[in-house]
Amino acid sequence: MNEAALTLEGWYALHDFRSLNWTAWTAADDEERAVALEELHAFIQEWGPVEEAKQGSSAVYAIVGQKADFVLMYLRETLEDLNRLETAFNKTAFAQYTTKAYSYVSIVELSNYAASGSSNGGDPMQSPHVQARLKPILPQAKHICFYPMNKKRHLDDNWYTLDMDKRRELMHSHGLIGRSYAGKVKQIITGSVGFDDWEWGVTLFAEDALQFKKLIYEMRFDEVSSRYGEFGPFYVGNLLTPESFEEMLKL
Amino acid sequence: MNEAALTLEGWYALHDFRSLNWTAWTAADDEERAVALEELHAFIQEWGPVEEAKQGSSAVYAIVGQKADFVLMYLRETLEDLNRLETAFNKTAFAQYTTKAYSYVSIVELSNYAASGSSNGGDPMQSPHVQARLKPILPQAKHICFYPMNKKRHLDDNWYTLDMDKRRELMHSHGLIGRSYAGKVKQIITGSVGFDDWEWGVTLFAEDALQFKKLIYEMRFDEVSSRYGEFGPFYVGNLLTPESFEEMLKL
Amino acid sequence: MNEAALTLEGWYALHDFRSLNWTAWTAADDEERAVALEELHAFIQEWGPVEEAKQGSSAVYAIVGQKADFVLMYLRETLEDLNRLETAFNKTAFAQYTTKAYSYVSIVELSNYAASGSSNGGDPMQSPHVQARLKPILPQAKHICFYPMNKKRHLDDNWYTLDMDKRRELMHSHGLIGRSYAGKVKQIITGSVGFDDWEWGVTLFAEDALQFKKLIYEMRFDEVSSRYGEFGPFYVGNLLTPESFEEMLKL
Amino acid sequence: MNEAALTLEGWYALHDFRSLNWTAWTAADDEERAVALEELHAFIQEWGPVEEAKQGSSAVYAIVGQKADFVLMYLRETLEDLNRLETAFNKTAFAQYTTKAYSYVSIVELSNYAASGSSNGGDPMQSPHVQARLKPILPQAKHICFYPMNKKRHLDDNWYTLDMDKRRELMHSHGLIGRSYAGKVKQIITGSVGFDDWEWGVTLFAEDALQFKKLIYEMRFDEVSSRYGEFGPFYVGNLLTPESFEEMLKL
Amino acid sequence: MNEAALTLEGWYALHDFRSLNWTAWTAADDEERAVALEELHAFIQEWGPVEEAKQGSSAVYAIVGQKADFVLMYLRETLEDLNRLETAFNKTAFAQYTTKAYSYVSIVELSNYAASGSSNGGDPMQSPHVQARLKPILPQAKHICFYPMNKKRHLDDNWYTLDMDKRRELMHSHGLIGRSYAGKVKQIITGSVGFDDWEWGVTLFAEDALQFKKLIYEMRFDEVSSRYGEFGPFYVGNLLTPESFEEMLKL
Repeated sequence: MNEAALTLEGWYALHDFRSLNWTAWTAADDEERAVALEELHAFIQEWGPVEEAKQGSSAVYAIVGQKADFVLMYLRETLEDLNRLETAFNKTAFAQYTTKAYSYVSIVELSNYAASGSSNGGDPMQSPHVQARLKPILPQAKHICFYPMNKKRHLDDNWYTLDMDKRRELMHSHGLIGRSYAGKVKQIITGSVGFDDWEWGVTLFAEDALQFKKLIYEMRFDEVSSRYGEFGPFYVGNLLTPESFEEMLKL
Repeated sequence: MNEAALTLEGWYALHDFRSLNWTAWTAADDEERAVALEELHAFIQEWGPVEEAKQGSSAVYAIVGQKADFVLMYLRETLEDLNRLETAFNKTAFAQYTTKAYSYVSIVELSNYAASGSSNGGDPMQSPHVQARLKPILPQAKHICFYPMNKKRHLDDNWYTLDMDKRRELMHSHGLIGRSYAGKVKQIITGSVGFDDWEWGVTLFAEDALQFKKLIYEMRFDEVSSRYGEFGPFYVGNLLTPESFEEMLKL
Repeated sequence: MNEAALTLEGWYALHDFRSLNWTAWTAADDEERAVALEELHAFIQEWGPVEEAKQGSSAVYAIVGQKADFVLMYLRETLEDLNRLETAFNKTAFAQYTTKAYSYVSIVELSNYAASGSSNGGDPMQSPHVQARLKPILPQAKHICFYPMNKKRHLDDNWYTLDMDKRRELMHSHGLIGRSYAGKVKQIITGSVGFDDWEWGVTLFAEDALQFKKLIYEMRFDEVSSRYGEFGPFYVGNLLTPESFEEMLKL
Repeated sequence: MNEAALTLEGWYALHDFRSLNWTAWTAADDEERAVALEELHAFIQEWGPVEEAKQGSSAVYAIVGQKADFVLMYLRETLEDLNRLETAFNKTAFAQYTTKAYSYVSIVELSNYAASGSSNGGDPMQSPHVQARLKPILPQAKHICFYPMNKKRHLDDNWYTLDMDKRRELMHSHGLIGRSYAGKVKQIITGSVGFDDWEWGVTLFAEDALQFKKLIYEMRFDEVSSRYGEFGPFYVGNLLTPESFEEMLKL
Repeated sequence: MNEAALTLEGWYALHDFRSLNWTAWTAADDEERAVALEELHAFIQEWGPVEEAKQGSSAVYAIVGQKADFVLMYLRETLEDLNRLETAFNKTAFAQYTTKAYSYVSIVELSNYAASGSSNGGDPMQSPHVQARLKPILPQAKHICFYPMNKKRHLDDNWYTLDMDKRRELMHSHGLIGRSYAGKVKQIITGSVGFDDWEWGVTLFAEDALQFKKLIYEMRFDEVSSRYGEFGPFYVGNLLTPESFEEMLKL
């Protein structure tokens, strides 16, 4: 059986990182800002019914540092759904006060290593547990951490030339570290081969942001990361509730 | 016989990725937008006769994520044709609401490995099958995936110091993976040595975007990719019909 | 005991590097500049009570060269505190005359190697010495130097595949160099795994900027740096007192 | 005899790649555009007498893709001459509708390997053949291809630690490939050590753009390129005659 | 004795590369340009007394190509002096017609290898010869060349793990090449560890720009460069006298 066939995929994901154009925002008059906020509010309001209908899940977090001011994260059934969301946001009055900062296109996946272990012989796509992991409702955790990553293909450090047994063994011990943070850090792994510039996206959620550092640092000594991990930019942020988003934007 | 002589080339290709300047677009008045849409429509209309005359093929897809809003893809007989298309687009009123996002210049090719297998002793350029592959009509598939790539030249992982038999053997098994996706993914390989910053461009079309990931991920374990593949940015998108393009641009 | 558990963390840190838009600043009229300076002054004034309450520390330095005009450095108890500071600054009239230059998100840390040595068997978090290092009051030294860094994971030069005894030994001799600059250079090490694009931030303070060069150059011959150090951009600057900041901005 | 002494140099070269600001160009009124075109015309007119006086040569080509809209290529006797050309262009009304895209500073050279073979014992600088190659009149070929390149210095793949006999031997067989394209592709090699970010610039001219690909691809399997070549961005374009340049700019 | 202690340092250096905003410059009216030129003139006038007082030296050169239009190079006693110069320039009316292009912060140094040879047992800082090299008056040579560089730390090519005797020996033969260009090329080496993104800056001055290429190319075959040299961007330019600067800016 080939590698690709062993991976299970669920909802498509778009992370849409945005910066606020503070100069335009502070230069706008009260009515312009009110209109913009109203359209932002209406845009976010539409996420609820989608989540209730189990057709997707959404979240918005403030990002710390200059890389972005906030991220809109969407999980949806199709790439067309994601495109419509981007475009709808781009058309709002609020979006005209923002600039693009970074984005990531991927799809929720269970890797072949995990999938083959959890299927118990039956069709894993029928398992409610698998379905819940492939179509996850995003937790309203206080903090988010996102980063894209590759497995290295560099001379003697080449993940893709290891045989599958070796990779399964390595991923197993790697997974044990992740599991030891159960209850502290929730991980959503998304695959992005063919969709974006890295092979995977990792989105972590936690009540205590320090646990992101503890988890990723501990993993870095594990062979999967130490020899084979290649990491892109890291984004860390704080949950934006309707109230805290309004607070952030209030002058 | 040298390497270059074994490669067959067909139409030149330009991928012209564009972002919409949403702030300018939403700030324009209805009449300005109507003029812009009319010019866009007229520009796209001119593609039909070219395709009917078998002098080229064209497509337009929305791109997911912030990298671009859409891509105009052209296949034409000469570099001058491509230049005229770029310039004609740049002169439209619609283009003034867009910004450059990325572009790629290449030429449809059949690699020496494939070509030498399909020629059956005669002049392969006379084969209708070869001609159809070198001057392909772009399918109106729901999804597109584009990425540029190199073959590595890095110490022990050097494609270009392998002898031709080894390369042919490796490309053969690589090709088998591609062929196992026949009917699911259509591939157009374009060569770009001397034309752009990578050695090849890969353009894939599929009704189900997930097949892009399955195909490229499966290939990544194949030696041609695992040891010798070097990949640039990935773009994934959704077909824009006249109707869906208008829908995307409607406020 | 795992690696992550041996590291002690204190205050979160944000380095917010800014460039002045001199064209806008010189084009503003006297009253606009006066308002901007007043809001800048008020913004900085709020740092004092926070430091007195031992809830954080702050500093502002001019940066030499084009990379930035100044850096706002904050240590605070939470990521939310840092986000509020950024946002508050972004809302000031003064901020509208600045542009983003670079930023870094991290957390003050004592590495496991140092921590295990200084704990003397008790809970190190109870040690006033440890607390003072994890929640440091930033010195009003004449000069600052900031750079982010990684430990390499590159084939035979892989820090993360060394065993802990080897790493402890190497860090010990590395630390001796640092200690030989005691009284000349104060170092604050911040960890940024999961928070920003490098693994650590290093912030140095000195009365004589030449000591930065002496210290870092001497360390470069030490194995921790020579084989395992990977360095990001370097920023060097001069203390901005309220007077010298006003002087810098006065036309 | 040292390496540098064996190289012969002729005219300095500047490749000045420019993008048109189409939004400004299409927004200008007819008279503004007429003035701009007149100044562009006058600027280009001055190249003729320089070439007649054998004090330099010049060319202008449209570039395909988004990297640039056109390139102004100048060969002149001094760096001051090149600087005066840049500045004169920058002062034209036409230049205000363009933006910088890329540039390259170099000097026409005959490498020591070639030079030592062609000197026949006498002073090669006295040879008319050598002079013609060092101070070449740019052909009005239909197509141009430009790229900068280095020779690698990477562990075992280090051109600069090979002895001169080995390098001469490798360059000889490399040169044979180039010569087999005589009549199809004209090459101008310019050295840029100390002048720009790569070690050489390669400018190719051909009536059939496909020959650029054939030549460079064939060379890529030659050891000089396969093990030692490092390539920068590639630019490909079409000759701009006064008529086709006007056509390109006409609305 | 440690490495750092063997290095001697003199004046701090700032290279401030600037581009002219030609569109703003040509759009300004004659009086605006006159004011700007007057402020530029006054700014440059202040360099004379500093040089006479032996408190620094300054130069201005036009840069060839698009990377910058000119560079302001300052040597001064402190980082604060450099900061004041930058800020003073930024406040001039002329600076509003320029944009930032690149900058480099460093300090004139004599490397330990050279220093230990020239001290003759006494305190080298007392030597007038050493003082003249650490606090050099910039020559008004026709041409400048600037580039930053590192010594490599890459697996087997690691300068910093060589023992000092080996490094001294290598630097000695490297220095012989430099000395063979005495009278043709004047070199100023500045150290930038802790100050900017590379370890050294190299500033060369010559009457004949071709000598930059000859010198650097010859050095590239020397082991210090071939195995251990890592080079940043190169800038080459022509002396700007008050007259030629005015000529360059005159419309």
